[in-house]
Amino acid sequence: MIDVDWIALDWGTTNLRGWAIGADGAVLAEAQSDRGMGTLAPHDFEPAVLDLINDWIDGPITALACGMVGAKQGWTEAAYARVPCAVIPDDFTTAPTKTPGLSVQIIPGLSQAKPADVMRGEETQIAGFLARNPGWDGVLCLPGTHTKWVHISAGEVVSFQTMMTGDLFAAIAGHTVLRHSVAPQGWDDGAFETAIDAALSRPERMAGRLFSLRAEGLLAGMDAVTARARLSGTLIGAELAATKPYWLGQQIGIIGAGHLADIYAKALATQGVIAQIADNTDVTLVGLKAAYAKWKDRQ
Amino acid sequence: MIDVDWIALDWGTTNLRGWAIGADGAVLAEAQSDRGMGTLAPHDFEPAVLDLINDWIDGPITALACGMVGAKQGWTEAAYARVPCAVIPDDFTTAPTKTPGLSVQIIPGLSQAKPADVMRGEETQIAGFLARNPGWDGVLCLPGTHTKWVHISAGEVVSFQTMMTGDLFAAIAGHTVLRHSVAPQGWDDGAFETAIDAALSRPERMAGRLFSLRAEGLLAGMDAVTARARLSGTLIGAELAATKPYWLGQQIGIIGAGHLADIYAKALATQGVIAQIADNTDVTLVGLKAAYAKWKDRQ
Repeated sequence: MIDVDWIALDWGTTNLRGWAIGADGAVLAEAQSDRGMGTLAPHDFEPAVLDLINDWIDGPITALACGMVGAKQGWTEAAYARVPCAVIPDDFTTAPTKTPGLSVQIIPGLSQAKPADVMRGEETQIAGFLARNPGWDGVLCLPGTHTKWVHISAGEVVSFQTMMTGDLFAAIAGHTVLRHSVAPQGWDDGAFETAIDAALSRPERMAGRLFSLRAEGLLAGMDAVTARARLSGTLIGAELAATKPYWLGQQIGIIGAGHLADIYAKALATQGVIAQIADNTDVTLVGLKAAYAKWKDRQ
Repeated sequence: MIDVDWIALDWGTTNLRGWAIGADGAVLAEAQSDRGMGTLAPHDFEPAVLDLINDWIDGPITALACGMVGAKQGWTEAAYARVPCAVIPDDFTTAPTKTPGLSVQIIPGLSQAKPADVMRGEETQIAGFLARNPGWDGVLCLPGTHTKWVHISAGEVVSFQTMMTGDLFAAIAGHTVLRHSVAPQGWDDGAFETAIDAALSRPERMAGRLFSLRAEGLLAGMDAVTARARLSGTLIGAELAATKPYWLGQQIGIIGAGHLADIYAKALATQGVIAQIADNTDVTLVGLKAAYAKWKDRQ
């Protein structure tokens, strides 16, 4: 049996990931499952976490969780903290448990009144980024199904904006006439960058660019990989046009990994903006550790 | 048995509609089925049309068809005519048939080289509109899954642009996170017009407006009917921003029916543009009659 001090949980809509943390902050074990919030009813959460951590524990334990587990449809609702505020708010929500000795604390998400916006889980990644980069001010971009642009100053979230770009890409590529034109994978840097430039120089034409992907396939033999990169460039370009007040003239960090983080960096580079990329898994764990230290100080 | 001179067919992706026309141009009978092009393999087309018209005929007959029946995946490909050109091109394509005495002629669609674009079926509706309004010049809007904006001058199609607005609305309302926020029906004129204005005054912000429909539902209790009208206004507003060179300062006709034609007229009216609405079923039939007269003259 390993000597676990506490458990860190990243509990999103589609996945659950856990780490067993020792008294010195070292990761002693890690595990993940597909029992995301979206697949669970309220009474399923406790069995799901016990299945994940059972082999790690033999007595009372505290687990600290971030993400959609705290949504209204999750284990229990962790009320949003309203920006501007500290990245990790002071009040965590205790989830209802039946197992003696098991304490589960949920980190609240953040909300913004105007324009209305919400996040859950990203605040913990941002806390991790700031722990890795003390005193950092600027704008963080967290690409994903719902990409977040977050203005950070003096350790607080000042404002943020969510863009549905990833969700839109999947819906357009999978559920419109473009499903016949867009390849399921593959890439073309040139087509992507051309589409980014077009979107930023004439953003008002955005809606007119989509059907041309179909028509150029029919009439000019444009291949489906090129169409995929152009669709991506058209949507990310429209996102950059809408978020220009966030990234123009700012220090930019991207929290992400792999191809998606790379293409956001590439898109910003076409506008002369050089972004620092931070790995999302790393900053999630570092952010959970920072949140746990804050929680422990208050006990 | 009725005395049928010829058969008019409107054969789209999801539906087939037919009319039995007498020697004096009167409609003697009509019928429709759900055997649209999208549901049929090439050898299914002849049985589908025979099922529809069998009761009407007792000898040799000519049927004239418009729409997706002439697509590459249709009965037989009717090569596009390239704009600028007459609304109804000179060459129809003869579909392969096995039934003695059955002749099926397909009206070709139109294509545009740059920007690449295509239409099939709308050209016949446009011909009907021009038959009803001789000498009309201006821009026609044909709202639908793939809305067309078509510049008409001296009886020719000069240029056109397809907008995927209807297809996008269905994909976003059905297959993104907004499926939780957008009602399947219902309407709110004020929310629609506000969204149209916002889209036209700041078109570069378009992509940022979508997630706010979700966030305002969560935080401010925005109801799902309002969200539906706002999504529609956001997308049609983005369409109007992209097609401004088509409608600004032009005489405008809308070919359509019901709620969809009404909201396009309302959206244009917010910009001071008063559009004439023509019923799409009427102009389709009138267009098929005009095309048949042209075909008969050449025999």
